[in-house]
Amino acid sequence: MAKRTGKNTIELENKPKILSSAAIVGKNEGEGPLGEEFDEIEQDALFGRENWEQAESELQSRTVRKALEKGKISEKDVDLLFAGDLLNQCIASSFGVKEFSIPFFGLYGACSTIALSLAAAAVFVDSGAAEIAVAETSSHFCSAEKQFRFPLEYGSQRPPTAQRTATACGAFVLKKNCESPVYVKYVTLGKITDLGIKDANNMGAAMAPAAADTIANFLRDTNTAPDDYNLILTGDLGEIGTKLLREIMQKEYDIDLSRVHNDCGLMLFEREKQDVHAGGSGCGCCASVLGSHILGLMRKGELKKVLVAATGALMSTISANEGQSIPAVSHAVLLCREDENG
Amino acid sequence: MAKRTGKNTIELENKPKILSSAAIVGKNEGEGPLGEEFDEIEQDALFGRENWEQAESELQSRTVRKALEKGKISEKDVDLLFAGDLLNQCIASSFGVKEFSIPFFGLYGACSTIALSLAAAAVFVDSGAAEIAVAETSSHFCSAEKQFRFPLEYGSQRPPTAQRTATACGAFVLKKNCESPVYVKYVTLGKITDLGIKDANNMGAAMAPAAADTIANFLRDTNTAPDDYNLILTGDLGEIGTKLLREIMQKEYDIDLSRVHNDCGLMLFEREKQDVHAGGSGCGCCASVLGSHILGLMRKGELKKVLVAATGALMSTISANEGQSIPAVSHAVLLCREDENG
Repeated sequence: MAKRTGKNTIELENKPKILSSAAIVGKNEGEGPLGEEFDEIEQDALFGRENWEQAESELQSRTVRKALEKGKISEKDVDLLFAGDLLNQCIASSFGVKEFSIPFFGLYGACSTIALSLAAAAVFVDSGAAEIAVAETSSHFCSAEKQFRFPLEYGSQRPPTAQRTATACGAFVLKKNCESPVYVKYVTLGKITDLGIKDANNMGAAMAPAAADTIANFLRDTNTAPDDYNLILTGDLGEIGTKLLREIMQKEYDIDLSRVHNDCGLMLFEREKQDVHAGGSGCGCCASVLGSHILGLMRKGELKKVLVAATGALMSTISANEGQSIPAVSHAVLLCREDENG
Repeated sequence: MAKRTGKNTIELENKPKILSSAAIVGKNEGEGPLGEEFDEIEQDALFGRENWEQAESELQSRTVRKALEKGKISEKDVDLLFAGDLLNQCIASSFGVKEFSIPFFGLYGACSTIALSLAAAAVFVDSGAAEIAVAETSSHFCSAEKQFRFPLEYGSQRPPTAQRTATACGAFVLKKNCESPVYVKYVTLGKITDLGIKDANNMGAAMAPAAADTIANFLRDTNTAPDDYNLILTGDLGEIGTKLLREIMQKEYDIDLSRVHNDCGLMLFEREKQDVHAGGSGCGCCASVLGSHILGLMRKGELKKVLVAATGALMSTISANEGQSIPAVSHAVLLCREDENG
């Protein structure tokens, strides 16, 4: 059973574990500081397919296959696959996973999708609604630019506040009662925050208040402080959003995050050298950093308690063109090692 | 706890109930045969707002408020709101529910979204991950035409196989241990089927195989036959998809659905008079018919066991333009009255 803890947090009582994870990335991501930790670095931006959407779908199916292989799980034993992505009608996911004969749960949380899918998979596995579930999400620089911004061929200049959508995918296999030391202990799903920011080139600023709200709710509900965790990891706030998150946490909640906070958007690229402006972004940014580097450190025992609070900007090109502000959301999961009393 | 039953079905053991539901529709839908059963019929296609996307968001927020009011539930007591829609990046939902201070779970299953959101809400409530949850989804004729087809001003002709996207929303409040007689007993989530259909004006044909697969899986997993149910209800297969579903069930599974099957796309409009070609469609079609007419009959005891198998076409305009076929999915929930041994 699951149990409500405080106003917004769910405590999972049966230790849904992360049996295995995989992360596959594109060339630029592979040249970043975490390059050696990914399962695969694909040099071809098209992933051998005909267009950017198919490329992202191929990235998804490969990453799911890799995660299943690493967990020694056969496709036919998976009860449910939770996936979503940034493309209109989530076609990277639907075309990416249709080859699998696995029931499909589509979800959408923009760049918070990895936390949402991990949260959903964990609740389903914890409750017995699924024995084995896969959670995954992706993004692709080229499919995202094409859809949200300008054709790549324009070579548009981007402002320093802009982030670079990662070509990356992370997939996670969840199962109870298995050898893995890492499990999902708490889930905190976020409400939508909207402080009126309208600049689609400054997503970090739009998303920081959502992260602050969810992290503050989680800490209050569990009666804990940042120092109780080895790491509080946001998804893709980038440089500007990260500063803003820490400021909001300090001012609004009197909580100092700086000692334990990091952001996947700051970890994926070497910003100065790789010309990614404010950092990485996209569903795949957090998914790939978590599925490789972070879970690697947790398996080794170097990290024992990690709060993952991914954020998403819930706008579209239409809402932006119509002058609407950017609503944002942040969902969080607490990953714990079994040898740590959480 | 939940329990796996057969290969694809989840049995919920704690009777997550549908405490209340609401359905709000547009003018055309209000003039159809179910007109008297809706909570509200809005004559203004813009719902008092500035554009079609905002209109759909307004439709969502009003319907959620109405469902909460009918269930005598305060917004602050709702733990989670599950919602999705057809618009790019699901903006009808994110802008529709951002006024509520309720954690938001975004999901995407195209027109299967209502079954997916009911399924997810039921699993969360059953397991204790949420005490009170809302599941809802919408569609709007004008926002859908604008996004998926042609500007309304063109007055495009549509082929007879095409369906009409309903301007409609259905919202459902779920809670355990309450007075309502109707609960969710089983959930069967579907896998993606794709038989290669590419005609975006013939969604019924693309979706029928998915419905057949999920209904057949449900019947096999629960060891039951169509006659064990008062109604097997699909979401928006329309005329062509309905014929095809019954044919597939007969040919592939030797199952005769005709005596107990109906389709919300055939129920929402009076097809001959209302010029809707093959029937109604859109996320709101099934959601509004279920949230008014069907649950009304269940509350009165005239229907006791209803299998709702909504279908969704998981394509986008981009995948269609790139010549891809239409992947489809169908998710199902079994609604039971408590006085019926299920």
